[in-house]
Amino acid sequence: LPSKLPTGKTSIFSVMSSLAREHKAIDLSQGFPNFETDNHLKELVCKAMKDGYNQYPPMNGIPELREQIVSKIENLYGKKYNEASEIVFTAGATQALYCAITAFVHPGDEVIVFKPAYDSYEPDIKLAGGKPVLIELKGKDFKIDWEEVEEKITSKTRMIVINTPHNPTGTVLSKSDMLHLEKLLRDTNIILLSDEVYEHLIFDEEEHQSASKFPGLAERAIVCASFGKTFHNTGWKMGYCVAPEVLMKEIIKFHQATVFCVNHPMQRAFAEYLKNPDHYLSLGNFYQEKRDKFLELMQGSKFKGTPSKGTYFQVMNYSEITDEHDVDFAKRLITEYGLATIPVSVFHKDGKDHKQLRFCFAKTDETLEKAAEILHKL
Amino acid sequence: LPSKLPTGKTSIFSVMSSLAREHKAIDLSQGFPNFETDNHLKELVCKAMKDGYNQYPPMNGIPELREQIVSKIENLYGKKYNEASEIVFTAGATQALYCAITAFVHPGDEVIVFKPAYDSYEPDIKLAGGKPVLIELKGKDFKIDWEEVEEKITSKTRMIVINTPHNPTGTVLSKSDMLHLEKLLRDTNIILLSDEVYEHLIFDEEEHQSASKFPGLAERAIVCASFGKTFHNTGWKMGYCVAPEVLMKEIIKFHQATVFCVNHPMQRAFAEYLKNPDHYLSLGNFYQEKRDKFLELMQGSKFKGTPSKGTYFQVMNYSEITDEHDVDFAKRLITEYGLATIPVSVFHKDGKDHKQLRFCFAKTDETLEKAAEILHKL
Ligand SMILES: CSCCC(=O)C(=O)O
Ligand SMILES: CSCCC(=O)C(=O)O
Repeated sequence: LPSKLPTGKTSIFSVMSSLAREHKAIDLSQGFPNFETDNHLKELVCKAMKDGYNQYPPMNGIPELREQIVSKIENLYGKKYNEASEIVFTAGATQALYCAITAFVHPGDEVIVFKPAYDSYEPDIKLAGGKPVLIELKGKDFKIDWEEVEEKITSKTRMIVINTPHNPTGTVLSKSDMLHLEKLLRDTNIILLSDEVYEHLIFDEEEHQSASKFPGLAERAIVCASFGKTFHNTGWKMGYCVAPEVLMKEIIKFHQATVFCVNHPMQRAFAEYLKNPDHYLSLGNFYQEKRDKFLELMQGSKFKGTPSKGTYFQVMNYSEITDEHDVDFAKRLITEYGLATIPVSVFHKDGKDHKQLRFCFAKTDETLEKAAEILHKL
Repeated sequence: LPSKLPTGKTSIFSVMSSLAREHKAIDLSQGFPNFETDNHLKELVCKAMKDGYNQYPPMNGIPELREQIVSKIENLYGKKYNEASEIVFTAGATQALYCAITAFVHPGDEVIVFKPAYDSYEPDIKLAGGKPVLIELKGKDFKIDWEEVEEKITSKTRMIVINTPHNPTGTVLSKSDMLHLEKLLRDTNIILLSDEVYEHLIFDEEEHQSASKFPGLAERAIVCASFGKTFHNTGWKMGYCVAPEVLMKEIIKFHQATVFCVNHPMQRAFAEYLKNPDHYLSLGNFYQEKRDKFLELMQGSKFKGTPSKGTYFQVMNYSEITDEHDVDFAKRLITEYGLATIPVSVFHKDGKDHKQLRFCFAKTDETLEKAAEILHKL
């Protein structure tokens, strides 16, 4: 029986989470908060179920939620999407990324991906028969070398994937990056896939540069977003993407085929909850405090890293401690120390080991304190 | 921009449901009940959210629900699946069907589909680069001609799709059908995709013949099931499939890529709710009464049909009324009479019109009465 994805592996997030559960480890691995989503939001879900919103919603989502999101995007990024034809709610951003890649990448097409990268882009591209063209981010700030990008673009380039704020490095793209990209893509047919699931988790003086903000990008961009990351409920599996109608038309075909539609009572609840923009606008400060707390706790340890500018991840180098491979070190941290993290090599080209671990700081202060206590022993 | 699915159309279910909403029609079109899912089940979801099950569950599902389902299958069909490696929860049965087809159908492969058929199999097959080989069900009982199936099997046949109880015809496969199929597939590598989403909606003296019951089928079968159809909550988008480990290993790769995992609090709620088998064992009687009610109400009308043996659909012929094409007639029924149905031609090979409509009788008695009143005017 030939496999359609012979190189397909269980995601590192499942591997480390399972191991963490098995060893009852403190879990800073997979990206999810260990504090609670708002009770008010839970009550809205209960109310929606009680009010009878338990059957199929429209395929692309309920109008009330579509309207909420397009006006949110217009307010934040100045781009007005059509709520009827340019947005679809998905079973997590994962499904949006899958549909976007699957709808447009034909066998033989090239897709530019910046490394390190979140681990779902490349399998999706390969499943579609495409060829990932990997470009390393440069220096300790993980910058994109736009000249290199220009060189790597060929007549076969179908798509470029960007991700800002960036998982795992916690860097963000600047306005000048986006203008570079806009210029580069002008007069091409290249589609931009912009993974912006951490759009509201951005720190210090940084401003989120959504692809939606830049007309030359928005006209060709599929922008993916996540309710789970934004509202502390990754287990509800709700996300969405927006794109110009000509692209959305094709994405919808794959949405229809893969899931048809997504959870109705939860859509209803989000439509209500999103009426208060504080629920997402307060998020940057909230997580900035978490990051600061974590970095403060780590001071004096042998783990070293540049402060994250966004996401809820902090990457740290451990080469003062050991020259073990990061996967081995991460596993040993679970089994011997009861602490779970993600080895950064899994995000790198050819799994190159930079002696770095990724810590998820979306945790209660108590958990962060316990984690730091362990890490100081190393 | 070349489309990956140039023939891809909006599903008839979306088309008719939208039109029904627009005209505030009585809706017997898309398959969902208009009565409520159990309050107790809703409360279990609220409890799960309150208890903090709001982050990523394990990729293949929570152990408690996996165990419930494998023991349910063992009790009902005598086949013991491994809860760790042979089951996965999906965003509705739609996603299970998609992953099953996408994981195994390679470009050029042939997949046998019996027509009329539910409208998602063929697009999934085409998206995977496969070729649907369509075989018409025979006679007014919609029987499979097993000799024809044998003739149509070639060295390229990768998969056969069956669906029992059958949407839209309401027929069921017999034990003898399953034994025929078992014999036919012996010593081949052909995978069986068995869509059993209406497994508990079966009437009269019929018994559900799950592929899981037949060792020669179970060893090669992917069996898809739906919580939405079984527990009156199609809008929660929860389903699953079971398959031997060698097949599940590949399905999981596509599950990981398409959605990663599914709704955590709802998994938790179903794990509790399924402890009482009455919740699904009572379903056959419940829907049989609905069918009987509907057929009784339709007596004396010009719509004629053989009583459905399973599913919550009844197909009826309207040729005594008009020789309009069924799509036109179905649209006119909405716009002029305020009643929505599904034209059966969309399930047929080349959209052949048999002057039939499909009525969903998963509706309150009041709705069925209002519908019948309208239909008697024709
Ligand atoms: C879908 S599981 C991965 C969660 C995540 O975004 C991460 O940990 O990077
Ligand atoms: C996923 S929408 C289709 C619902 C259904 O099963 C039907 O109406 O046949």
